[in-house]
Amino acid sequence: MSISNVTSPVQLRAEEGPGQPVPTPELEELYRGFERELLVPLWTEIGDLMPLHPQSKARPHLWRWRHLLELADRAGQLVPVGRGGERRAIALANPGLGGKPYATPTLWAAIQYLMPGEDAPEHRHTQNAFRFVVEGEGVWTVVGRDPVPMNRGDFLPQAGWNWHAHHNATDRPMAWIDGLDIPFQYANESQFFEFGRDAISDAEKTTPQRSRSQRLWGHPGLRPVSQPGPRQGSPLLAYRWADTDAALTDQLELDHEGFPGVVEPGHAAVRYTNPSDAGDVLPTIRTEMHRVARGTQTTPTREVGSSVYQVFDGSGVVSVGDSSWSVTRGDLFVVPSWHSLSVKSEAGGSDSDSGALDLFRFSDAPVFEKLGLHRVETTA
Amino acid sequence: MSISNVTSPVQLRAEEGPGQPVPTPELEELYRGFERELLVPLWTEIGDLMPLHPQSKARPHLWRWRHLLELADRAGQLVPVGRGGERRAIALANPGLGGKPYATPTLWAAIQYLMPGEDAPEHRHTQNAFRFVVEGEGVWTVVGRDPVPMNRGDFLPQAGWNWHAHHNATDRPMAWIDGLDIPFQYANESQFFEFGRDAISDAEKTTPQRSRSQRLWGHPGLRPVSQPGPRQGSPLLAYRWADTDAALTDQLELDHEGFPGVVEPGHAAVRYTNPSDAGDVLPTIRTEMHRVARGTQTTPTREVGSSVYQVFDGSGVVSVGDSSWSVTRGDLFVVPSWHSLSVKSEAGGSDSDSGALDLFRFSDAPVFEKLGLHRVETTA
Amino acid sequence: MSISNVTSPVQLRAEEGPGQPVPTPELEELYRGFERELLVPLWTEIGDLMPLHPQSKARPHLWRWRHLLELADRAGQLVPVGRGGERRAIALANPGLGGKPYATPTLWAAIQYLMPGEDAPEHRHTQNAFRFVVEGEGVWTVVGRDPVPMNRGDFLPQAGWNWHAHHNATDRPMAWIDGLDIPFQYANESQFFEFGRDAISDAEKTTPQRSRSQRLWGHPGLRPVSQPGPRQGSPLLAYRWADTDAALTDQLELDHEGFPGVVEPGHAAVRYTNPSDAGDVLPTIRTEMHRVARGTQTTPTREVGSSVYQVFDGSGVVSVGDSSWSVTRGDLFVVPSWHSLSVKSEAGGSDSDSGALDLFRFSDAPVFEKLGLHRVETTA
Amino acid sequence: MSISNVTSPVQLRAEEGPGQPVPTPELEELYRGFERELLVPLWTEIGDLMPLHPQSKARPHLWRWRHLLELADRAGQLVPVGRGGERRAIALANPGLGGKPYATPTLWAAIQYLMPGEDAPEHRHTQNAFRFVVEGEGVWTVVGRDPVPMNRGDFLPQAGWNWHAHHNATDRPMAWIDGLDIPFQYANESQFFEFGRDAISDAEKTTPQRSRSQRLWGHPGLRPVSQPGPRQGSPLLAYRWADTDAALTDQLELDHEGFPGVVEPGHAAVRYTNPSDAGDVLPTIRTEMHRVARGTQTTPTREVGSSVYQVFDGSGVVSVGDSSWSVTRGDLFVVPSWHSLSVKSEAGGSDSDSGALDLFRFSDAPVFEKLGLHRVETTA
Repeated sequence: MSISNVTSPVQLRAEEGPGQPVPTPELEELYRGFERELLVPLWTEIGDLMPLHPQSKARPHLWRWRHLLELADRAGQLVPVGRGGERRAIALANPGLGGKPYATPTLWAAIQYLMPGEDAPEHRHTQNAFRFVVEGEGVWTVVGRDPVPMNRGDFLPQAGWNWHAHHNATDRPMAWIDGLDIPFQYANESQFFEFGRDAISDAEKTTPQRSRSQRLWGHPGLRPVSQPGPRQGSPLLAYRWADTDAALTDQLELDHEGFPGVVEPGHAAVRYTNPSDAGDVLPTIRTEMHRVARGTQTTPTREVGSSVYQVFDGSGVVSVGDSSWSVTRGDLFVVPSWHSLSVKSEAGGSDSDSGALDLFRFSDAPVFEKLGLHRVETTA
Repeated sequence: MSISNVTSPVQLRAEEGPGQPVPTPELEELYRGFERELLVPLWTEIGDLMPLHPQSKARPHLWRWRHLLELADRAGQLVPVGRGGERRAIALANPGLGGKPYATPTLWAAIQYLMPGEDAPEHRHTQNAFRFVVEGEGVWTVVGRDPVPMNRGDFLPQAGWNWHAHHNATDRPMAWIDGLDIPFQYANESQFFEFGRDAISDAEKTTPQRSRSQRLWGHPGLRPVSQPGPRQGSPLLAYRWADTDAALTDQLELDHEGFPGVVEPGHAAVRYTNPSDAGDVLPTIRTEMHRVARGTQTTPTREVGSSVYQVFDGSGVVSVGDSSWSVTRGDLFVVPSWHSLSVKSEAGGSDSDSGALDLFRFSDAPVFEKLGLHRVETTA
Repeated sequence: MSISNVTSPVQLRAEEGPGQPVPTPELEELYRGFERELLVPLWTEIGDLMPLHPQSKARPHLWRWRHLLELADRAGQLVPVGRGGERRAIALANPGLGGKPYATPTLWAAIQYLMPGEDAPEHRHTQNAFRFVVEGEGVWTVVGRDPVPMNRGDFLPQAGWNWHAHHNATDRPMAWIDGLDIPFQYANESQFFEFGRDAISDAEKTTPQRSRSQRLWGHPGLRPVSQPGPRQGSPLLAYRWADTDAALTDQLELDHEGFPGVVEPGHAAVRYTNPSDAGDVLPTIRTEMHRVARGTQTTPTREVGSSVYQVFDGSGVVSVGDSSWSVTRGDLFVVPSWHSLSVKSEAGGSDSDSGALDLFRFSDAPVFEKLGLHRVETTA
Repeated sequence: MSISNVTSPVQLRAEEGPGQPVPTPELEELYRGFERELLVPLWTEIGDLMPLHPQSKARPHLWRWRHLLELADRAGQLVPVGRGGERRAIALANPGLGGKPYATPTLWAAIQYLMPGEDAPEHRHTQNAFRFVVEGEGVWTVVGRDPVPMNRGDFLPQAGWNWHAHHNATDRPMAWIDGLDIPFQYANESQFFEFGRDAISDAEKTTPQRSRSQRLWGHPGLRPVSQPGPRQGSPLLAYRWADTDAALTDQLELDHEGFPGVVEPGHAAVRYTNPSDAGDVLPTIRTEMHRVARGTQTTPTREVGSSVYQVFDGSGVVSVGDSSWSVTRGDLFVVPSWHSLSVKSEAGGSDSDSGALDLFRFSDAPVFEKLGLHRVETTA
C-alpha cells in the first residue's frame, strides 16, 4: 500500500529550522521512504504534537439562547421525533472544530426540544449524558422505567448504558440542554448503542412530582441500607433546583457572616455528586452550579480540559481568553483547555433583584483527574 | 522475672483431652519451664483462643430507658459537670464484660444529661463519638466552634480529634445517648485526649436552627466546590429527623408500590453516611435507622461484630440469641457478635398510630469491613 | 460569524432516511439557520456519532521491522539529534488516520535510533512514555539523573513529567521502540512540555548494569519503608528481560503440570505493574508480554480500545479483523478498537528452538477501565 | 439482675478529686443505683479510659531464643502434634497481659517446632498468620495444596481463611516463629476456624525449591494477566531471604553513594507487600526487615500500636521505653504502643563480618492506618 491511498497525508518536506536536518536530495529521498512505509518523523512534527502547554483547537464562543430557542421551535414544527433520528437535539459546533457537532474536543452540548404530547423513543448508550433545564417544564425523562420530572433549575444525570426515553405530558413544548461525552467517546472509539422499546408504557407516562430515585437517594447524608456499595454513575436521577438554590444561598450567607465555604469572596459553587461514592456525578463529566454575587468579579483561572457554561440567571460579562461577552439567561459559552476564565456579575440592579449571576457548568475534569493529568492555575 | 509476678497467670496443667499430651512428671516440668520463661503453649489454649465461630463474652442485655432517665435525673442533682469529670455520662456495663463500662467489647453507650444553663467543657480525643436524641431538646453541641442544635431524632456524629463542648440554652434538662469506640481504642491502645477551653465564647452560645456544617454539607447530592476531597469523619455534624423520617417513609411507600429499596418487605433502613466519601459516618462506627412496619417480623440475621440498638419509637418484641424482650421508646439493647437478631413490631395499634417500630442502631462493622473480617448470615 | 469561516463545515442536507424529516424548502431554510448559528442537528449525524459498537477509523496494519530499521539507519546518517527536534524517532502512521503519526487514535509508536556516542537532550512532558528493546544494547536512558541500561527484552517505563535524556555509551548504533499517549493527550489537550539541560553530566554518563531505581524497587514483593505510598507512574524504571522470561517460562510449566496461571492453554502473559500500587505501569498505558507456545492458536478476542504489538521472538500468523499476516522478530502491528485478534505460533521448528511466539503489547486499556468504559469479549 | 452476678464489678465509690462530686449518702445511693442497673459513670473512670496518650498494659520484654529453643526441643520430645492441639507452638506471654499468650494486646508470637517426618494437620482460620525462619530448614508449609519451602530468612505470609498444613521432609527437627492477630480477633470476636484433612496427600509432600505461588507471583513488577485484581492477603506465599538481603544491601550501598532510599543514614528497611495491591502483606499485620549498619544508632521513634521484633542476625543493644537489652540472633522483644524504640548495632567486629544488625519486625499498623488512628513521632 502506498501512502497515496491515505486521506490527507502529511507531505514531509526537508525544511530548515531549529533541530531540523539540512535539506538535501538524500533527505528528500529518506522522507519519500518514510511515506512509502507509512512513517512520520517526530522531529518535523514535535512543535505541533508536543506543545509547551495545551493549544486548544477549540475557540471561545458564545451561543445566544434566544437564537437556539427560535431554531429549536422551528425544528419542532418541521422535524419529527422518532426511531432513527432518536432525538430532536441541535448541537453546538465549535468554530474551531471543523464544523463537527462538538462544543469542545470532548464535550457535546445541545438544545433538545419536545412538542406537546410527544415521546422520544427508548434507547441506551455508553455515552454519559445529562439534561439541565434553564426554563420550562412538563417533560418527564423516563430512566430505567422511572419517570423523573424536569423543571427549571433541575439537573438530571443519565449515566452510560441506562435505558431512557422522554415524555412531554403537557400541551406546551419544552426545551432543555443535553450534555454528553460524545466527542470523547467518538475519538477514543469506546461507544456502544442499543435501541429499546419504541413506546413506553402507560405506567411510565405518569407524572409524579418525585422520581423513585429521588425517594431512595435524595435524602441528605442518608443511603438505603439495601444499596451499600458504590455505583458507577449517580443513582440519583434529578438534583432539584430548590436544593441547589438553598446550598448557594447558604454559602453566600456564610461568606457574609465571615465563615468559610465559598470558592472566593462573593463566589459560591456546588458540585453535583454521586451519593453512592461522593465523586463526580458521571464518570467522565463534572457538573457544577456557580453563583457570583452582585458586583463580584471572579479570579481569572485556567485549567486543563474544557468546559461549557450556561447562564441560568442574572446577567454579566464573561471573559474567556481574549474574548469577552455580555451574557444573559440561557446563553451558552465554551472555555477551551488552558484558557483563562473570569466572570463579572452586574453591579447595579433593583432591590427586589438579587443581582447574582448563576452559571451552570459542565466539564471533562474527571477524565484528567483520574489519569493524573489535571492542572489548575489562577492567572491573576 | 518469674511468672509469679504476673497478674492472673494461666496455671498450665497437663490435662487429658483430644490432642493433649499424656500427663507425666516430665510434662509438668516442661510446663513449669514455660511459666518461668513467660510462655504459654497453643495446644492447651486453642479451644478458647481459636473457636469455630465468635463466642462473645458480651451477653444480650436490655436497659430500660425509664430507669436510665431516673438515674440520670438524680445525677443531674448530685453530680456537677466540669473539668476533670468532663461529662455527666453514665455508661451501659454489659453483664458479661466484668463490670467495665462497655456495652460490647468494642462499643461504649451512655446516657448523657445536661441541666438547664449548664455547659460541658471543651475537649477532643481520638475516640470517635456520636450523639442521638430519643427525646428532648435545648442543647447545642459546639463542634469546632459551630453550635449544632440537638432535637428529637437527630443524629450527631463527632469524629475523632475535633474540639467539642455542649451548651444547654434552655431552662430544662436534656438527656441523650452517646456512642463511642472507647473499648476498641482502649484495648488497642490508640487513644489520645486533649483538654480545650474551660468555657466557650458567647458567639458559640447562640442557638441557630441550622449549624454552619449543615448549611455547607446538608444539601442532597451537592458538595461545596471549595471542599473537593474526602474527609475522615463526616463534615456534616447533624442528620435531622425530618430527613431520616422522610427517607424511611419513602422506602416503605416504594415497597408498598412494588418497587425495590427496603431491606426486606416491611423493613426500611437508612445508613448515615459521610457526604465527603459516601462511606460510614465515622471510621470505626456504623450508624443506621431502621423502621419495621406494623405487624412485621424481620428475618433472623447474625453478623461479625456487635451492635447497640435504641428504640426510637413504637414498641415490639426483640429476640437476640436466646433472649427476648418487649421493648418501648428509649430502651437500649445489645446484640453481641454472631448472635442472631430478629425484631417484631406490634400487630395492632390505633388508626392514628403508624404502628411502626423505629430502631436506631450503631455497630463496629466498619472495623471488620476494612480488615476483611466481616460476615453476615441470615439464619432463617 | 458565519459558518463559512469554519474549516470543513458539515453541509447539512435534507435527506431521506429512517427518522429523517421530509425534505422541503422550509427544512432547507432551517438547516441554513443552523449553519449560521454554528449548530448541527443530531438526527442527521447520529448514525456516525453514536454507532452500535466502536467503528474504528484506524485500520489493522503491519510494519516490517527490517524496513523500519533500514530507514532509521539511514536517518542516523542524515538527521542529527539535538535540541528542537529532540529525538530521532520515526512514528507509525496508521493508514486510516489521515497521515498523522498515530499508530491508533490514542497511541504513538515509533522506532528511535541513537548513533554511537550520541546523546538525546533532556526534556520532560506530561505524555506518558516507555521504551522497549527488541534487539541491541549500549544506550542508557537517564531518568531523573539515574542512568538505566537498555538491553534486549527490557521494558522501560517513563511516566509523565519526569526529566529524561538518552546516552549511547558504545561505538554502535542502537534502535528501540517508543510508545506514548501523544494522540490521546493531543486530542484531549492536556499536554505540557519543558526543555531541560542540553547536556547531561559525566556522572550521568556512567554505565551501571543496574539503575538506582532497580536497586530500590526491583526486589519482588519488597518496597522501601522510606517510600510508603502510591506513586503515579512506576518508580521502577526498567523491567529486565531475565525476569520477564522467567515469569513466562514458569507460567507455561505450571500449565504443563496442570496448575492455573496462564491466560489459556499454551498462552502465558505477564503485565508490567507499578510496584508502588500494583496497577498499570503508566496511568494511560497498559503493557504486557505474551508467550504463545509452539503450535498454539489463541482464542479470538476483541476489546474496547486499541493495542500495538511488537513480535519479540519467534514467528507465526496474526489475524486482526479481516487482515492476516505472517510475522517475525521486530514486526509491529495494530489492533484497532473492537477488532478481533487471534495469534498462531509455528507448529514446527527445530528441537533447539522453543518455537514460542513472544509478543510485546501496549494498549490504552487503563483509560477505559478508569472511566468505566472497558469491555472484553471472546469471539470464538 | 443485680450487679453482684457480674464478674469483678467496678465498685463505685464516691471519691474526692478533680471533677468528682462531693461524697454524700445521696451520692452513695446513686452509685448503688447505677450498680443495680448495670451502669458505670464516666466521671470516675475517664482518667483510665481516656488517657492523654496510649498507656499500654503490655510491658517491654525480651525473650532469649536459646531458652525458647531448648523448651521447644523438649516439647518436641514430650508433646505430639495432631488434631485437637493442632500445632506445637509455644507463645510469648507478655508480663503485663495477665498471663495470656499475647505478645502484645493485638499480636501473638510463638515458636513452632516440627520433629523429623512430622506433619501438622490441615486447618484454616480467619486469623491472619505468617512464619519467619531465623534458622534451620526442611519444613514445607502446604498452603492451598501448594508446598512452600521454608529456609533461613524466609518470610511466609498466611492470610486468613486459607487451608494450610506443615510437613517436615527431613530427619532433623525445625523451629520457626509464627505471628498472628489472635489477640486482636479474640478481643473483637471476629474469628472462625475450620478443620481440614488430617493428612495431606503424597503430591503435597513433594519438596520443590520454589512454590507454585512463587512461580506465579515472585517476579519483580510482573503479575499474571490471568489474575488482574487485588487479593486480600498476599498471593505470594514466600519472600525468600536472597531477595530481602539483596534489597537491604542495595539500600545501604545507595546510602553510601549519597542517594536516597534508606530510612535514615545507616538504617535500611524493606516492607513485605502484597504484589496484587502493593499494600501490607496481611490485612491486619505489617512486616518488615530492618538492617542497621555497623556502629549505627537509630533515631528514637514511637508510634501507635505494638510491634514484635526478632533479631535475625548480628548483635547490638535495644532500648524500648525505659528498658534496654543486649540482643543476639533469635532474641525476641516487644515494643508496646507509644513506647520509644532505638536500636544500636555493634561498633566493632572483624573485617569479615558485616557487623550489621538485622531485625525482623511485625506490627499491627495496618489496623490503625485503615481506621485513621495511626501516629508516628520521633522522640529525639
